[in-house]
Amino acid sequence: MRGYNFAAGPAMLPESILIEAQSELLNWHGLDRSIMEIGHRTTDFTQLLEEAEADLRDLLMIPPNYQVLFLSCPARMQFASIPMNLLSHGEKAGYLISGIWSAMAYAEATKLRQAYCIATSEPVHFSDVPHEKDWQLKKPSSYVYYTPNETVNGTRFSERPEVGAIPLVADMTSCLLTETIHVNDYGLIFAGAQKNIAIPGLTLVIIRDDLLEKRHEAIPTLLDYHIQAQHHSLYATPPTFSCYLAAKMFKWVKAQGGVAAMQRVNRQKAEKLYHYIDTSNFFRARVKKEARSLVNVCFDLNNSSLEPIFLEQANQAGLYALKGHRTVGGLRASLYNAMPQSGVDALIAFMQQFAEDHA
Amino acid sequence: MRGYNFAAGPAMLPESILIEAQSELLNWHGLDRSIMEIGHRTTDFTQLLEEAEADLRDLLMIPPNYQVLFLSCPARMQFASIPMNLLSHGEKAGYLISGIWSAMAYAEATKLRQAYCIATSEPVHFSDVPHEKDWQLKKPSSYVYYTPNETVNGTRFSERPEVGAIPLVADMTSCLLTETIHVNDYGLIFAGAQKNIAIPGLTLVIIRDDLLEKRHEAIPTLLDYHIQAQHHSLYATPPTFSCYLAAKMFKWVKAQGGVAAMQRVNRQKAEKLYHYIDTSNFFRARVKKEARSLVNVCFDLNNSSLEPIFLEQANQAGLYALKGHRTVGGLRASLYNAMPQSGVDALIAFMQQFAEDHA
Repeated sequence: MRGYNFAAGPAMLPESILIEAQSELLNWHGLDRSIMEIGHRTTDFTQLLEEAEADLRDLLMIPPNYQVLFLSCPARMQFASIPMNLLSHGEKAGYLISGIWSAMAYAEATKLRQAYCIATSEPVHFSDVPHEKDWQLKKPSSYVYYTPNETVNGTRFSERPEVGAIPLVADMTSCLLTETIHVNDYGLIFAGAQKNIAIPGLTLVIIRDDLLEKRHEAIPTLLDYHIQAQHHSLYATPPTFSCYLAAKMFKWVKAQGGVAAMQRVNRQKAEKLYHYIDTSNFFRARVKKEARSLVNVCFDLNNSSLEPIFLEQANQAGLYALKGHRTVGGLRASLYNAMPQSGVDALIAFMQQFAEDHA
Repeated sequence: MRGYNFAAGPAMLPESILIEAQSELLNWHGLDRSIMEIGHRTTDFTQLLEEAEADLRDLLMIPPNYQVLFLSCPARMQFASIPMNLLSHGEKAGYLISGIWSAMAYAEATKLRQAYCIATSEPVHFSDVPHEKDWQLKKPSSYVYYTPNETVNGTRFSERPEVGAIPLVADMTSCLLTETIHVNDYGLIFAGAQKNIAIPGLTLVIIRDDLLEKRHEAIPTLLDYHIQAQHHSLYATPPTFSCYLAAKMFKWVKAQGGVAAMQRVNRQKAEKLYHYIDTSNFFRARVKKEARSLVNVCFDLNNSSLEPIFLEQANQAGLYALKGHRTVGGLRASLYNAMPQSGVDALIAFMQQFAEDHA
């Protein structure tokens, strides 16, 4: 019996995927070689990638006028790729800022092109998302950027921003495949792999065809969506091992009943933990109820001096990586798709016991 | 007994590393978690990275005024990062072109900044490297770029270009750790991991301190060497699993006796194979003797119609991935560090038998 890993990312993987990968590690597909030793242009690998894409298209019902790209580089590279691809000279984009990731995406966009802030919840220390009544949406805007779920601050938009015909760009690094979405509502979706998909080094981009045709200045070729789409993600070597794990993860999510089923479980897990925190007089949640993440539960001990003991004892109990992000401190339990209900139950039982012991 | 994998990359890994990785895959370092599930800012991981860097510094005797960066993204990203970091407005760099990789690096540099071609061996279809008597080195040049070993064309510079005080930039993707070098001779060295180091998604950069201080236009933050060095490669999540394999590989090379020992074996392997090809009347080498790669042996059947049968029978004999790069055709045997002498012996024995059978 393994413990429960609440890390925000790199995050836990389903044990069944690890066991499969382990058993195949020296001989994948009967090839007498590891998947790690197989060329990205071999039929074996391109079939793997095609199947992964087909499974992801099934899971998210991705319409045919969207391309799916399996890109190398951290998700954060998209903070640059998006303005560089989507903003021509003189154009600007609007950013909604609801946590440190959207703040960094905005900073990168203003560094490289022209962007403005539609609204930010920084004045309330990201304990909430910006409310629609405060938005300053300028026209024209080439796109609107937001982060549906903020991993560090634990905020979540409970509704998709309404931006009319302006392409909506979403960083779904921590929430892709955890809730149902309508891909049609977005111009571009991206997600780093290290939370709900696979391991660091892979970033998925789902982009509507018309956005591939934007004319822009000369940019690094690897960052050019048009070229990556033309080459079916094989312009350069993709992170093959992470793609292999992603392919397994998509099948795993399907076997769990798909994204809607994941969302039901994720809601249950989050509600149970928030409910315990809210009713406890020992812990408190950081984020307003309406804006709480389903997958990154940020909370504090009322007596913060107990934090090191809490973390140490949790770790000994097989409840790992509950420390909040270094920039904000506190505690955080990440409850991605791979975290079973039993992990949340074990965490709550531990918290109850800890509260009793230190009452 | 596994077969021999002659792939140019992703390439074979030492079996002992695969076996170790397999045994640790669900529980690394006694942490009850996979290395794939461990945060990049945990002490366990940062120690791994520090040890990997220390081992690489030992292996290459890297002087203290050089930084070692473990970067995400394919090596090809460096084709953009190098000019974007090292060329200020109005500055230019010179490129030596000895195969398709240096040609692509040159194209990217001219797309993004200012670069010129010092000399190219394209007129002889990269069967040679450009000879020094033909070089047109302009002054000032902010750097000189070359590719000591060209994976696709199988060319190699037998001597380092003499460029005086101009910083020399080298793409050592296919040759880092296969031959001894003096890091002091270079301003910047980079290498993708998928040939001699680990798996795709990791690129090593070794850069001299003074080059980190170059002032340049606003560039994507992830591509900024200065920022990556400041953050000890942890500005964004590094490709943790590839770093873990690289750490094992550095220890493996040390256990083999270090880079000088690898070079001796690599010379023996290459000389043996070229010698057989040169003395056979069935096969012929593509590259002039003085410019032949030690690790990518490119050759042809005199009767090229036999190629599909050759590849099919080789594969059945457990000699994998001998097909030349799709852009140039023919045959190629990649003999990186992980390829043992016995693999070359098995290949030569197979080639002899094939030649007899089809005489």
